[in-house]
Amino acid sequence: MRDAYHEELDSIGDSLVEMGRLVGSAIGRATTAILDADLKLAEEVIEGDQKVDELQHDLEARAITLLARQQPVATDLRIVVTSLRMSADLERSGDLAQHVAKLARLRYPARAVPRDLHATILEMGQLAQRLMAKAAEVIITKDVELALQLEQDDDEMDLLHRALFQHLMDDRWKHGIETAVDVTLLGRYYERYADHAVAVAKRVVYLVTGEHADELQADVPTVSRGEAPEATEGAEGG
Amino acid sequence: MRDAYHEELDSIGDSLVEMGRLVGSAIGRATTAILDADLKLAEEVIEGDQKVDELQHDLEARAITLLARQQPVATDLRIVVTSLRMSADLERSGDLAQHVAKLARLRYPARAVPRDLHATILEMGQLAQRLMAKAAEVIITKDVELALQLEQDDDEMDLLHRALFQHLMDDRWKHGIETAVDVTLLGRYYERYADHAVAVAKRVVYLVTGEHADELQADVPTVSRGEAPEATEGAEGG
Repeated sequence: MRDAYHEELDSIGDSLVEMGRLVGSAIGRATTAILDADLKLAEEVIEGDQKVDELQHDLEARAITLLARQQPVATDLRIVVTSLRMSADLERSGDLAQHVAKLARLRYPARAVPRDLHATILEMGQLAQRLMAKAAEVIITKDVELALQLEQDDDEMDLLHRALFQHLMDDRWKHGIETAVDVTLLGRYYERYADHAVAVAKRVVYLVTGEHADELQADVPTVSRGEAPEATEGAEGG
Repeated sequence: MRDAYHEELDSIGDSLVEMGRLVGSAIGRATTAILDADLKLAEEVIEGDQKVDELQHDLEARAITLLARQQPVATDLRIVVTSLRMSADLERSGDLAQHVAKLARLRYPARAVPRDLHATILEMGQLAQRLMAKAAEVIITKDVELALQLEQDDDEMDLLHRALFQHLMDDRWKHGIETAVDVTLLGRYYERYADHAVAVAKRVVYLVTGEHADELQADVPTVSRGEAPEATEGAEGG
């Protein structure tokens, strides 16, 4: 039997997993909405983000009540503080999925993504969704190995992002400036979404091992970075 | 005389103000670096961000120690939790200033911003710096009126951002795709930076009044939004 205190801690974990499930589904549906110019689906994603925001507010309130009433120390304190940060990452991921959907709505009935970039955007969307599914699994299982995998997967996102920019910068680009602007922002949304999923997994690693994920895999070779016009970055600090 | 506990709370506030000062200076210098193609200044901003990250890590460690040892409740607990969030906003603002500087470095010796957009980017940079200066002042003074002003100032940023997009979408745009991509990202960096400054001020309002800033000024008319290709958004949740 668990006491009320640990039940409350567990329920905060459950809320994080539920947020992960919702924002994972949101990025998948937003990607479909933008590729198919599906206005109804876009609207659903846009409205659905409210549920994520509510979950976050509720989680925060419960975490603060827990801190005040139970005054946890050591590991339990870290779990609560880290949960607050993870909920911020998940909430922000939901916003980014919503941005993709809003772009679909803004350009409707036109399609924001030209045909020759469909495959790349689809891959980015699917990878983002997989990353979030893994992050949610890491929250449940506390599996450090799986958490470290997310950083490798994120390198894939960087490669896709770089491919997107190469396509944009290609002299044969024929889709005009508006589409270039849209694709630039889309690329950034997916990249930031992935960063937040990775950040969630990293925070679990830190909870479990007391070490930052970067230190644990210092000897894993990373993909060298291209000259995309934006910095590769983590979501540390939101 | 203040006791050790409240001295520690104060010193967390001091660190936030110092972070605000550093990231305010960083966005100003990054803007100069990108407008003047000043590589040395860009490098300084890029390296300087480490100091901001260190301040944040240090602040977090002290906040968690304070929670564990002093187990604050009610207002004091909220101050500590809110400080953690503000430090995340400030750290992220530093990253965004760094992104501007990295773009300056990437394009050096060329200039990333064409002449006809210098004035707009300069205004965005100056406004971002002013917003952060005000946010730091709000942390010090807890001045709710001033905090609410920041949201009005942020409407100015939205107008500048919209002007930037109108320029990009203009048929007479003659600077090519690479510059369009750079300007799109720059616009987003400044807008997000401003969002984080506003978020810091809003969190102070919430601490002081117990009400969310949006509720306090529900009857203040807001500038109507244009059809920029990205959502206007707050930095809530990072």
